[in-house]
Amino acid sequence: MKPFKGERIFTPGPVELPDAIREVLGRQIIHHRTPEFTQAFLETRNLFKKLVGCPEENFVFFASSGTGAMEAAVLNFFREGDKVVAIVGGKFGERWAELGKRWGLEVVKLNVEWGKSVDPEKVENLLKENPDCKGVLVQMSESSTGALHDVKTLGEITGKSDALLVVDAITALGVYDIKPCEWDIDVLVGGSQKAFMLPPGLSMLWFSEKAKERLTDRAYYFDISGELKKQIEGQTAFTPAITLILALRESLNILLSEGMEKVEKRYRVMAEGVRRAVQALGMKVFPEKPTISLTAVFPDELDADALRKEMLKMGVRVAGGQGKLKGKIFRISHMGMDLLDMPVVLSALELALKRLGRDIKLGSAVGAYLEAVNE
Amino acid sequence: MKPFKGERIFTPGPVELPDAIREVLGRQIIHHRTPEFTQAFLETRNLFKKLVGCPEENFVFFASSGTGAMEAAVLNFFREGDKVVAIVGGKFGERWAELGKRWGLEVVKLNVEWGKSVDPEKVENLLKENPDCKGVLVQMSESSTGALHDVKTLGEITGKSDALLVVDAITALGVYDIKPCEWDIDVLVGGSQKAFMLPPGLSMLWFSEKAKERLTDRAYYFDISGELKKQIEGQTAFTPAITLILALRESLNILLSEGMEKVEKRYRVMAEGVRRAVQALGMKVFPEKPTISLTAVFPDELDADALRKEMLKMGVRVAGGQGKLKGKIFRISHMGMDLLDMPVVLSALELALKRLGRDIKLGSAVGAYLEAVNE
Repeated sequence: MKPFKGERIFTPGPVELPDAIREVLGRQIIHHRTPEFTQAFLETRNLFKKLVGCPEENFVFFASSGTGAMEAAVLNFFREGDKVVAIVGGKFGERWAELGKRWGLEVVKLNVEWGKSVDPEKVENLLKENPDCKGVLVQMSESSTGALHDVKTLGEITGKSDALLVVDAITALGVYDIKPCEWDIDVLVGGSQKAFMLPPGLSMLWFSEKAKERLTDRAYYFDISGELKKQIEGQTAFTPAITLILALRESLNILLSEGMEKVEKRYRVMAEGVRRAVQALGMKVFPEKPTISLTAVFPDELDADALRKEMLKMGVRVAGGQGKLKGKIFRISHMGMDLLDMPVVLSALELALKRLGRDIKLGSAVGAYLEAVNE
Repeated sequence: MKPFKGERIFTPGPVELPDAIREVLGRQIIHHRTPEFTQAFLETRNLFKKLVGCPEENFVFFASSGTGAMEAAVLNFFREGDKVVAIVGGKFGERWAELGKRWGLEVVKLNVEWGKSVDPEKVENLLKENPDCKGVLVQMSESSTGALHDVKTLGEITGKSDALLVVDAITALGVYDIKPCEWDIDVLVGGSQKAFMLPPGLSMLWFSEKAKERLTDRAYYFDISGELKKQIEGQTAFTPAITLILALRESLNILLSEGMEKVEKRYRVMAEGVRRAVQALGMKVFPEKPTISLTAVFPDELDADALRKEMLKMGVRVAGGQGKLKGKIFRISHMGMDLLDMPVVLSALELALKRLGRDIKLGSAVGAYLEAVNE
């Protein structure tokens, strides 16, 4: 039976757009060199400042996808020849290493088995062995494996060193109540199409005072100093993604009305529930220490892609594995979701398993989820 | 009397969004790693191929504003130390020179008085004096002055040399029936928020076979080779501006249904009409050889910004001067406009002049416009 409602997406970006945001996206355009835009942009900046909870205005927005802001981090805070440690435990960790190499950094790779989280002690030792290290590049939520890296502990380590802690928080910002100042994070990167529930095309980059002192003039389109000067005044160096800035204001209002503590709690409850649900079906949660933004599931001997295909017939889209995990895992995103959205994807999962001949008791995953949520 | 309908924008980007495009923008998001997106993207690419009228698939889209694609041109087609000529006759010409310097090129500036168009003979002579020149960077429509540079003649010149002709056509593509292959253009850059009538955040870059041979691997986010490989298959290297790609398909359908010859004719008629209208009011068209994308007006002893302010009270927004032209000119965009939109902006202009104490005959500008259109 083909679903009449169209596809429901449970992918870790893009995520479903709330109606209130779609309404903003469909509005007639306004010009960006106007008091109207400036006011809206300054409001958006104020809301973003509340989100990160730091007093400084050290952040900029770019008209780009998240990778653009990652490139901005590498170009603006490091010089050619600078030594950095890239923590590589998935596809996005690899991206840090690639970016570092492309822009002339000396990249020391700290390889982490895919699905595992980095051992902070290893980072500490590496920094001791490399006292000339200028930065540690890491994901908070490595969405290709579903693993969470403990950036708070990493901040304690880099905070005592000369190195900047550069965190790709693209699938963590707007999920976790991240406090970059308190946690000694130096650079924090976010993207619009994740927990901000917007279309892709807008990225965010926050940085510390320690990072600010290292700003270079290597970039042009992604030049942080130039953008910051303009953005503090409610303008941008180049044409901004007007529509996405206006929609981000709406998104931040949604997040801050709920309150980031409660938002994180909601994700925590959903994630815990989904983990128990997949375990109730005899499947494994893939990462050792999972992020709450999404759950990566290892369905053992079952073909993860066959399962996804079966779910898709019911109009439910979950993500597959990336890179070396292709066909081995599937990933259920929680971003932009509410507690009662998960029974939809879990029901589809149960039916898909049944249709693929697995002997499961229908309702068992949803039941386990609801039990967890009800605790 | 405050207008109840809200602001009407006649600015050279962003421009008014057609309803059909707003409808696409307000839709629920779809995932980009899907056959559905791939199909839509390939359709969009096919339509874009028709627009430029070249058989090759040599073009990519970026999630960025137009400046991002300009940066891509400089990074991908030139190496450090390459000598290029930048034609600087306005703010956007300056941007070419800045970008060239930032990415290590040896930039020979060919300064053109603001408002004038470059003399192709001067370019030809410069290329003779600099046989090692690898490129000529120019705007087709220099929107800060309203001047048109004759890129067709420039193409004849660079075509006989080793230099690539790199054209910022951000306010020309979708207005003029540009034929980059026939005109010997090597790189053509466009932006979504101009004649494509979309929000900003998507840029386009087309290139010739001659340019293709020079592709470097200097860029990462703006890496053309990497993007091209993916985009030919209907995918992208990094997350695309999904919504804007889908809306671009709509936009290209609108343009191609009218037909680019007719589109150009429509702009030509509007531009000629507006020029006669402002002259009927005793004002001057600022550029010597104006583009048809917009009309830059020099209101003589009148303060252009006071005039703009007066028009804004009636809900009509035109653009001011940029850089050294600030306060001296105002600019009326024709992009995304229909013949009967111009009487709106011209009526506001007439009323504004009257209110500022000018002795003009109301209806004279609109009359002159309609006479021109009716020819």
